[in-house]
Amino acid sequence: MCRWLAYWGTPVLLDTILYKPTHSLIDQSLHSKLGVETTNGDGFGVGWYSQHNDTPALLRDVGPAWNNRNLRELADHVQSSLFFAHIRASTGTAVQQSNCHPFRHGRWMFMHNGAITDFPLLRRDLTLLVDPRLYPYIEGTTDSEVMFYLALTFGLDQDPPAAVARMAGVVERVGHEHGVEFPLQMTLAVTDGARVWAFRYSSARASRSLFYSNRVEALRRLHPDVAFLRELSEESRLIVSEPLGDLPGAWKEVPESSYGVVQPGLDELHRFAPAAV
Amino acid sequence: MCRWLAYWGTPVLLDTILYKPTHSLIDQSLHSKLGVETTNGDGFGVGWYSQHNDTPALLRDVGPAWNNRNLRELADHVQSSLFFAHIRASTGTAVQQSNCHPFRHGRWMFMHNGAITDFPLLRRDLTLLVDPRLYPYIEGTTDSEVMFYLALTFGLDQDPPAAVARMAGVVERVGHEHGVEFPLQMTLAVTDGARVWAFRYSSARASRSLFYSNRVEALRRLHPDVAFLRELSEESRLIVSEPLGDLPGAWKEVPESSYGVVQPGLDELHRFAPAAV
Amino acid sequence: MCRWLAYWGTPVLLDTILYKPTHSLIDQSLHSKLGVETTNGDGFGVGWYSQHNDTPALLRDVGPAWNNRNLRELADHVQSSLFFAHIRASTGTAVQQSNCHPFRHGRWMFMHNGAITDFPLLRRDLTLLVDPRLYPYIEGTTDSEVMFYLALTFGLDQDPPAAVARMAGVVERVGHEHGVEFPLQMTLAVTDGARVWAFRYSSARASRSLFYSNRVEALRRLHPDVAFLRELSEESRLIVSEPLGDLPGAWKEVPESSYGVVQPGLDELHRFAPAAV
Amino acid sequence: MCRWLAYWGTPVLLDTILYKPTHSLIDQSLHSKLGVETTNGDGFGVGWYSQHNDTPALLRDVGPAWNNRNLRELADHVQSSLFFAHIRASTGTAVQQSNCHPFRHGRWMFMHNGAITDFPLLRRDLTLLVDPRLYPYIEGTTDSEVMFYLALTFGLDQDPPAAVARMAGVVERVGHEHGVEFPLQMTLAVTDGARVWAFRYSSARASRSLFYSNRVEALRRLHPDVAFLRELSEESRLIVSEPLGDLPGAWKEVPESSYGVVQPGLDELHRFAPAAV
Repeated sequence: MCRWLAYWGTPVLLDTILYKPTHSLIDQSLHSKLGVETTNGDGFGVGWYSQHNDTPALLRDVGPAWNNRNLRELADHVQSSLFFAHIRASTGTAVQQSNCHPFRHGRWMFMHNGAITDFPLLRRDLTLLVDPRLYPYIEGTTDSEVMFYLALTFGLDQDPPAAVARMAGVVERVGHEHGVEFPLQMTLAVTDGARVWAFRYSSARASRSLFYSNRVEALRRLHPDVAFLRELSEESRLIVSEPLGDLPGAWKEVPESSYGVVQPGLDELHRFAPAAV
Repeated sequence: MCRWLAYWGTPVLLDTILYKPTHSLIDQSLHSKLGVETTNGDGFGVGWYSQHNDTPALLRDVGPAWNNRNLRELADHVQSSLFFAHIRASTGTAVQQSNCHPFRHGRWMFMHNGAITDFPLLRRDLTLLVDPRLYPYIEGTTDSEVMFYLALTFGLDQDPPAAVARMAGVVERVGHEHGVEFPLQMTLAVTDGARVWAFRYSSARASRSLFYSNRVEALRRLHPDVAFLRELSEESRLIVSEPLGDLPGAWKEVPESSYGVVQPGLDELHRFAPAAV
Repeated sequence: MCRWLAYWGTPVLLDTILYKPTHSLIDQSLHSKLGVETTNGDGFGVGWYSQHNDTPALLRDVGPAWNNRNLRELADHVQSSLFFAHIRASTGTAVQQSNCHPFRHGRWMFMHNGAITDFPLLRRDLTLLVDPRLYPYIEGTTDSEVMFYLALTFGLDQDPPAAVARMAGVVERVGHEHGVEFPLQMTLAVTDGARVWAFRYSSARASRSLFYSNRVEALRRLHPDVAFLRELSEESRLIVSEPLGDLPGAWKEVPESSYGVVQPGLDELHRFAPAAV
Repeated sequence: MCRWLAYWGTPVLLDTILYKPTHSLIDQSLHSKLGVETTNGDGFGVGWYSQHNDTPALLRDVGPAWNNRNLRELADHVQSSLFFAHIRASTGTAVQQSNCHPFRHGRWMFMHNGAITDFPLLRRDLTLLVDPRLYPYIEGTTDSEVMFYLALTFGLDQDPPAAVARMAGVVERVGHEHGVEFPLQMTLAVTDGARVWAFRYSSARASRSLFYSNRVEALRRLHPDVAFLRELSEESRLIVSEPLGDLPGAWKEVPESSYGVVQPGLDELHRFAPAAV
């Protein structure tokens, strides 16, 4: 299991979001409160969009985030209006850069907390369902990356919620075929660099936690003394595995079996269910 | 491409073979003479059998061998009568521990120099031919590891030369199906902890170099002053991608399209050809 | 702060001590109970004596012990009758191999849990007190390594307890000169490959925990069903930062301001006090 | 020994300078032509100034530059008008992040190719000459970092050429005191984020190579078809250990015992000699 964070909004130094908050993601790499594991030290990754390139940049490494100097440096010098960050607690697969989230394909990024139950048993069948043209791009050995490539196979580029629903449907079908009762546990985020889709779902309807930040405007009224809030645009939004810090009123839980869309204009929240493929 | 070395014989400190020779494997990691690349700095591995365990031990890491302190330490303290060592020059796949040779399955070890031509194109079809019960053990993303698991699929445990021949046959067949004229280039070694099989083959009949050491008895007569030779048993044997040092008379080339068997009693040398599957 | 373990006794696979116990050192790297930090993921090291070399071998790496495959491999294949193992939680100095314990000089090994208070302030003065002939051997930047080289400077080779007492005395004197009230906090172990000396001391008389295993004979009577105990010789002994597992009667605390000697024949336990230099 | 590159000028993607040229620095990490070593695979570093922070950012890692994915990512997404890049071939000191160039102190960066002869012998005396207030900032164990902190001690902040001259003078004096005939070999670069100073000097007057790029205006006349040149401002300048690519007329050698200053307006070139301290 893992912890992750997605930021969309006013360009900010990564430091502002990654290190500054009281219970920051970096702090969670040592002391997660809501995670299955309290330590998330099996690698990390951050992916961000810049104005210099259509595809996002990735910094990923195999050590813990809490002592990584390159991440610390980057956070102090790189600004972005849309970035993902992820800290990993391996559920068994190798601790290697190619298994670190976020994963990228073209302008898309993907990150995940959760697991496909009995993945070693299902891995071959699921991998075979990946479009053969996409297959060569799979670089690691995680369930998460296979989920990403299944979603790409099922049209992530056209209709992200539908593609993720079909991915979830396929994972459940293949799992059931192998006698796995509850094949899927996921909170995941995808982005094309413009919008962010975040999903919370599990076959057992007992999904890992997922939160989104309240409207900046409302937070400013609640906390007129918090300097950071004055820097953010009205539309800025965070989606996180567990709340950063403990600002009252700051966080709302994404409901079970739902997904949200963070985008220019009004954000959205919808029901989510796997789709038959 | 890569460089490798297999040792079979009198128990020796790894240091004796890995570091001591003039043009040692460690030296080849910086300055290979016969390799396609002069530098082999994309990871390394050593695998050895000890009396404490039926399966071989592996030390593998992603940095260059030449500056690795853990390898240096091990070489000074571990003795073995059968070990493999490998230095990697990636042909494109990720530099990660799970892509470092030797690979291991049960008591078997495998290492490889060469490549499957257009592997990204052939990878999916070849991986599908791996026995589904073995598939979950594939940890990395190299052509070499897929070759190992294909050989295991085709009965490496029962008849190594036949299994490797079928693996080579399948690689060529799948390659030709995708329009690849010369799909396979390989020098490879496998061992079960008792015997070592070493193969030299390429579809274009232009295989990378492979050498084996002359009989110790003969070398002692030629070089009565070389202390190291007095330590070795008559049967000790080295197989290497390129000669270590330049002791005249020490090395013989494994002929094109051949394989050798190093074993108690007389060693063997045979013709090798891919087999239809 | 850190966690460590010293083993002296019947030759055993490292695995037996490092991984097998319920609350093993490897488990403590993720979930320490008594440590200042619950996570010790800033590098690790194991040092062991073999019959092939007078100096001990070191395997040290910068990632967490819990996911290190080379350590796992070694533990399954290397036997030793005297070894040290250490997991690190950095108190600020860089996470790098040269800062990982154990440290080695000739046949001596040294490891430490604790800290010199305000080390950046004291580092220069303390380093200057290291014998200039030993100074070039300092490779890292930790307080621990400087403590080791001070002990070597003060005659570790001749009289370890006296040398460690003088080291502690010098650290306290230099600390006091810089206005540091409680300069030293330490539990440390040194060995020459024959005996192990373990010290527990802190300037504030509030030292980190340190335990030694009870006599094997007594443990066997208490736990006749524990297979592992039957493998050990009467004299086998463990010294640990915190108990492994929860075998009742297995562990005794090293008293505050004390040191123990594990050696052939009767072990010893003495009072410890810093010595003026 | 090492290879390095300093860029000053029009903001460019790091990729343009680090990877795009035919004989780029990344290529030199595998195949240096003019270096003492042909391989520079013992770590690397890049340091750049951004508009978000007064101090430069550093990305440094211990593996080879040629296979580092984080460097590749950064190069594709980060623009800078002043950056340093360095690839390392260790002359003996540990391969660790804290020994990778560039080094940083406040807004200053420093990188070096060369060596202090018999540094282990001179290290203690030289380190003692570092200002005690700066001493705690020394993180690694290289001769280069000590040279940087000596230069800082001698007023780098006020008068860089004078400070470097005093540093060189002190190295030579201490070297001679220890019977070292030719203590210093250096090509080095320092910057405060506005100007770059580059020095070429060695006690034996046989300094490693150092080149600077010709005026952009002249290059454009010579090579009207080279697109890259049209992107650069007139004042853009590169200083390199060895030429990138082989554009005729592009490179001029920095003379023996000289230093150059790259700055807004006219650049400068002066004689360099160590100064007595």
